[in-house]
Amino acid sequence: MKAWQFTGVDEPLRLVDLADPRPGPDEIVVDVKAAGLCHSDVSFVDGTITALLGSVPIVLGHETAGIVSAIGSDVDSFAIGDRVGIPATTEGPGTAVDGGFAEKVRVEERLVVRIPDAVSFEQAAPATDAARTAYRAVRTFGRVEEGMKVGVIGFGGLGSLGAQIARAFGAQVYVAEINEAVRPNIQDFGPAGMSADIRDFEDAQLDVIIDFAGFGTTTASAIDAIRHGGRVVQIGMARESATLSMQKIILKEITLVGASNGEKAECEAVLDLIAQGKIRSRITPIAFEQIPEYLGKLRDGQIDGRAVAVTP
Amino acid sequence: MKAWQFTGVDEPLRLVDLADPRPGPDEIVVDVKAAGLCHSDVSFVDGTITALLGSVPIVLGHETAGIVSAIGSDVDSFAIGDRVGIPATTEGPGTAVDGGFAEKVRVEERLVVRIPDAVSFEQAAPATDAARTAYRAVRTFGRVEEGMKVGVIGFGGLGSLGAQIARAFGAQVYVAEINEAVRPNIQDFGPAGMSADIRDFEDAQLDVIIDFAGFGTTTASAIDAIRHGGRVVQIGMARESATLSMQKIILKEITLVGASNGEKAECEAVLDLIAQGKIRSRITPIAFEQIPEYLGKLRDGQIDGRAVAVTP
Repeated sequence: MKAWQFTGVDEPLRLVDLADPRPGPDEIVVDVKAAGLCHSDVSFVDGTITALLGSVPIVLGHETAGIVSAIGSDVDSFAIGDRVGIPATTEGPGTAVDGGFAEKVRVEERLVVRIPDAVSFEQAAPATDAARTAYRAVRTFGRVEEGMKVGVIGFGGLGSLGAQIARAFGAQVYVAEINEAVRPNIQDFGPAGMSADIRDFEDAQLDVIIDFAGFGTTTASAIDAIRHGGRVVQIGMARESATLSMQKIILKEITLVGASNGEKAECEAVLDLIAQGKIRSRITPIAFEQIPEYLGKLRDGQIDGRAVAVTP
Repeated sequence: MKAWQFTGVDEPLRLVDLADPRPGPDEIVVDVKAAGLCHSDVSFVDGTITALLGSVPIVLGHETAGIVSAIGSDVDSFAIGDRVGIPATTEGPGTAVDGGFAEKVRVEERLVVRIPDAVSFEQAAPATDAARTAYRAVRTFGRVEEGMKVGVIGFGGLGSLGAQIARAFGAQVYVAEINEAVRPNIQDFGPAGMSADIRDFEDAQLDVIIDFAGFGTTTASAIDAIRHGGRVVQIGMARESATLSMQKIILKEITLVGASNGEKAECEAVLDLIAQGKIRSRITPIAFEQIPEYLGKLRDGQIDGRAVAVTP
């Protein structure tokens, strides 16, 4: 099978021909139908987090959706022909072992989720990682519920998903975004409020603010803007540190909580929201052959929405 | 009655003779038996938070315990002779209206709690404020439970109470304190670990760290030391701001939460712990006449434990 292999820091991915994978007893093989390109892939290539990889060379790709084409002797949850996704995990394909930038991928059964019929492979692929992480920030840590007022800082890939998830749970959503080019996307979403600065919504008494940007100053602004007793969820990590008013955190009894990768159950929850038509990722479909080119565009900030390599 | 009246910023308290208070329909009058001196009193006098006072001149004192000596016509929860405490609140005596640095104090019935027989007035007075606030940090926001490992930064008045409260709920307590003079007090307490720096307990996988110091650097160290998924509770406020690693907060999915004043129910909970002999404030008993002198010592950091003006 064809695969894009990472061979070393700052080396271009190499197109290789590998033996088709065969499942172990508790494994399945998935014919890849959609593989999302993630900022983490850029960071694997440029050296930032290369140490997390299980081995080198390795096939990258950890946002994978496809059809089961082979199962191991002990597999009982999935059958050949099932539509499945592989939630991103450091012990899974694309990080620990060969991933989804290939025609086929082998994966342990326990790591796999079923994709509802109403969800396309293109939508399922980023749901295994980006959308799931947004879900964790909004719902698991943000505890967003019906009737809440929720601020979203940053309306990029994760932020726009977060805004949709918050609305899916019945929240009024206020969006802060400094990039004017994104304004039309925000207007399409139709927020309760839109501004460059979350502090402009201080009077709205926001219950929860989720910072998808992470410039430090954005966290500090969230601390300013949030209501007494409110929650600030940090997910964006553009800067290592932030200088925050501890006085405000104390006197307003604010909870600040960090959200990292999601879990398998959160991936299933988010696929369910997609099936219900409540959330949708902005996708740029590309061909398998374009994966290295689009990783470069991703590195250079030239992609609006998620680039997903789609197999016809 | 005699009372110490605050008349203006940086003016010495003035000993005045006021008419004995008489209760309104929903009020009671308490004969003061113990009145704690709080850092907030220093801040009322020096101008820092003087704006919070309901009026000036005013009698300060918001950690008050005593005996009911008169009740209003609508009062049904308390009777003359009851032993009661008045939990500190911005709408209560010593802040909104005349407080406990006097022979008698008038207070709304709804603000008052009963003192268990086993609790002395001297212990009850600081329980209405300091111990209650420590309880809020440890239990309400720290969610300390049986078997947890808890770090306490700062073993002053509040910190030593916090450590006792954490142990009362079955936690192993690790203490970080830079002031070597306090070491004997910590040794008396018998912690699971003692150091100048909470980061020395990183290997202990602390579930909760409560920062009673609040030097900014202490919060940053707590973020370093806490286990993945742990909670850091901020209560000390020695510095306005802190520079924190957002990367650690995100990747370790840390919850940082600020704790401010407690509520009436928390005061009752803490009085119950005192009655059970599980916690005890370090008290420096003083006479009513010494209140201004000891506010000065408190300002100058010369008091170990809580100064409480006691009426024989």
